Amino acid sequence: MRREITGFSNPLFKQVRSLREKKLRKRERKFLAEGLRIMTEAREAGYLPEMLFRVKDREVHSLEIVLEDAVLSAGGDVIETSADIMSKLSGKENAQTIVGVYGDHGTALADIDRSTAPIWLVAQAMRDPGNLGTMLRTGDAVGAGGLILIDDCTDPFSVEAVRASMGAVFTQKVVQCSWAEFVTWLRAGEGQLVGTSLETAHDYQAPQYASPCFILTGNEAQGLPAEYAGECDLLVKMPMRGKADSLNAAVATAVMAYEVLNQFRNTKAM
Amino acid sequence: MRREITGFSNPLFKQVRSLREKKLRKRERKFLAEGLRIMTEAREAGYLPEMLFRVKDREVHSLEIVLEDAVLSAGGDVIETSADIMSKLSGKENAQTIVGVYGDHGTALADIDRSTAPIWLVAQAMRDPGNLGTMLRTGDAVGAGGLILIDDCTDPFSVEAVRASMGAVFTQKVVQCSWAEFVTWLRAGEGQLVGTSLETAHDYQAPQYASPCFILTGNEAQGLPAEYAGECDLLVKMPMRGKADSLNAAVATAVMAYEVLNQFRNTKAM
Repeated sequence: MRREITGFSNPLFKQVRSLREKKLRKRERKFLAEGLRIMTEAREAGYLPEMLFRVKDREVHSLEIVLEDAVLSAGGDVIETSADIMSKLSGKENAQTIVGVYGDHGTALADIDRSTAPIWLVAQAMRDPGNLGTMLRTGDAVGAGGLILIDDCTDPFSVEAVRASMGAVFTQKVVQCSWAEFVTWLRAGEGQLVGTSLETAHDYQAPQYASPCFILTGNEAQGLPAEYAGECDLLVKMPMRGKADSLNAAVATAVMAYEVLNQFRNTKAM
Repeated sequence: MRREITGFSNPLFKQVRSLREKKLRKRERKFLAEGLRIMTEAREAGYLPEMLFRVKDREVHSLEIVLEDAVLSAGGDVIETSADIMSKLSGKENAQTIVGVYGDHGTALADIDRSTAPIWLVAQAMRDPGNLGTMLRTGDAVGAGGLILIDDCTDPFSVEAVRASMGAVFTQKVVQCSWAEFVTWLRAGEGQLVGTSLETAHDYQAPQYASPCFILTGNEAQGLPAEYAGECDLLVKMPMRGKADSLNAAVATAVMAYEVLNQFRNTKAM
C-alpha cells in the first residue's frame, strides 16, 4: 500500500528509526538497508522490504520503479516522506533517497549445506561493522557460501555493516554461533579449517587447500585465541615486508580467500 | 618540557582540538595520531610528536616511558591532562590515553625515488578515510614505498585515516598531486602502471608484473575514469564469482598488491 509520513512524531517513523539500535533490531527481528544499489541487490537475491521509505517529488530511477512495484505486489508498503524525515531515518546528512525495512534472515548453523560452496568465511569477535560488511562483500566476490560469526561479533544487520556489505548481506548466508557449536558442526562433515596468524612461519601459498575450505580470521586487535588456532588444520601467514607486521582483518581475509580461489580455479576445482 | 592542562578553556587544548578539522590541519601543517601502538610505530620510523598529551594518574606501559623520554629529549612537550579532557581531544568516549601532535610529513612527487621499492600504490579520488588508511597499512605490509593520492582524496592525515593506517602513515611516503603531474613524472622514468577495473576481461594473474609496479585504484563508487584507465600499461580484473561483481577499494588494492608481491618473491625479484 502507498502511504505518507509527514511528521517526526509519527509512530511508524519512531519505530523504524529505532531499528538503528541493535537491541530493537533483535527484538523486532528486522533491520534497515539503504539505497537503490543495495536494495536492488536484495531484490535480485529474493529479498523485498516489508516497508520501503522514499523521498517524494524527485527524479526516479527505473530500478526504483521495479523495486516499488515488487514491494507493492508482495503486499508491502511504500511510504512517501520528506528529505528531512529521511535524513533523520538514515542518520546521515547526505541521506539516501530510499530505505527499506527487512526481516532478519540469519541462518542457523544446522541449516547450512557446506557442499554448496567451496569457500566459507569464519570471523571471530570481529568488532568493526565496516570490516564485517567488507568480509561479506568479499565472500560474495570469491563465491563463498556465507559468513559464520563466532563469539561476540558486531551485528551483521547494523546499518553500517549492511552498507559496507554493498548488498552481500543478502547473498551470503549469515550464521551466528559459539566456537563449540561451530567446531562440533565442522567436524561432523568434510571441511578444512584454515586460520591466518602472525605466529606461524607457514607461508599461505605453500599448502594445497581443499574444498570446502573454511577461512578463519580472528579479532582485529588480538588475532585468534590460542585454542582456536590449535583447532585449525592449517595455520598460515601472508608475507609481511613492512615495519608493522599487520594487515586489516578484512584485507587479510580477502588476500587469503583469493589465494584459495586461485588454487581452486587453476586446478579446475572451481 | 612537562606541563599540565586542567581546563577546556585552555588555548592549547582548543588549538590541538582544532586539528581534527582538515582546514586547520592544512593551515598549521600538523596532525594528530592516537594511541601507544601507532605512536610507537611513528617513533621507530623516526617521527616524534611536538606535543604528547597523556592522561595522568594511571598505569604506564614501558613503551610509553620510552616515548615520553624521547619527546622530552628532542625538546618537545609532554602535557598531562585528565581523562575528560582527553576524551574531548580524541572525540571518542573510549579515548586513548595518549595523543600526539605531529608535523605534516607529506612528500613532494619530485622527492620520490621510485627505485627504492618494487611496489607503489596510487589512489584516485579515494573518499573514505578508512579505505585510505587501510591502503597505507597494506602498502607497509607488501613492502611498498608509498601511496600517491590523485585528485580529490580524503585527507591522509585525518584522525580516522591515521588510525586505519595503524602507523603506516609514518612508514609510507604520502604524496598528493594531480593526474597530469603524476603521469608526467611516471613517464620520465621506469615503471609499469597497472589499473584494476571491472571493465576488462584480462585476468590479474595472467600478466608478468615489472618493478617498480604502480598499482592504481579508482574511486570507491565510480572506479577509474576512462582517461586514466587508458593510460595504464595493464588493465586487469580479479575473478568475481558472486552476484555483485564488486570489491571494496582497499580490498581490491590488497589482493592486487599481494599478486604482484607473490610474483616478485617467487621469481626472486624481491
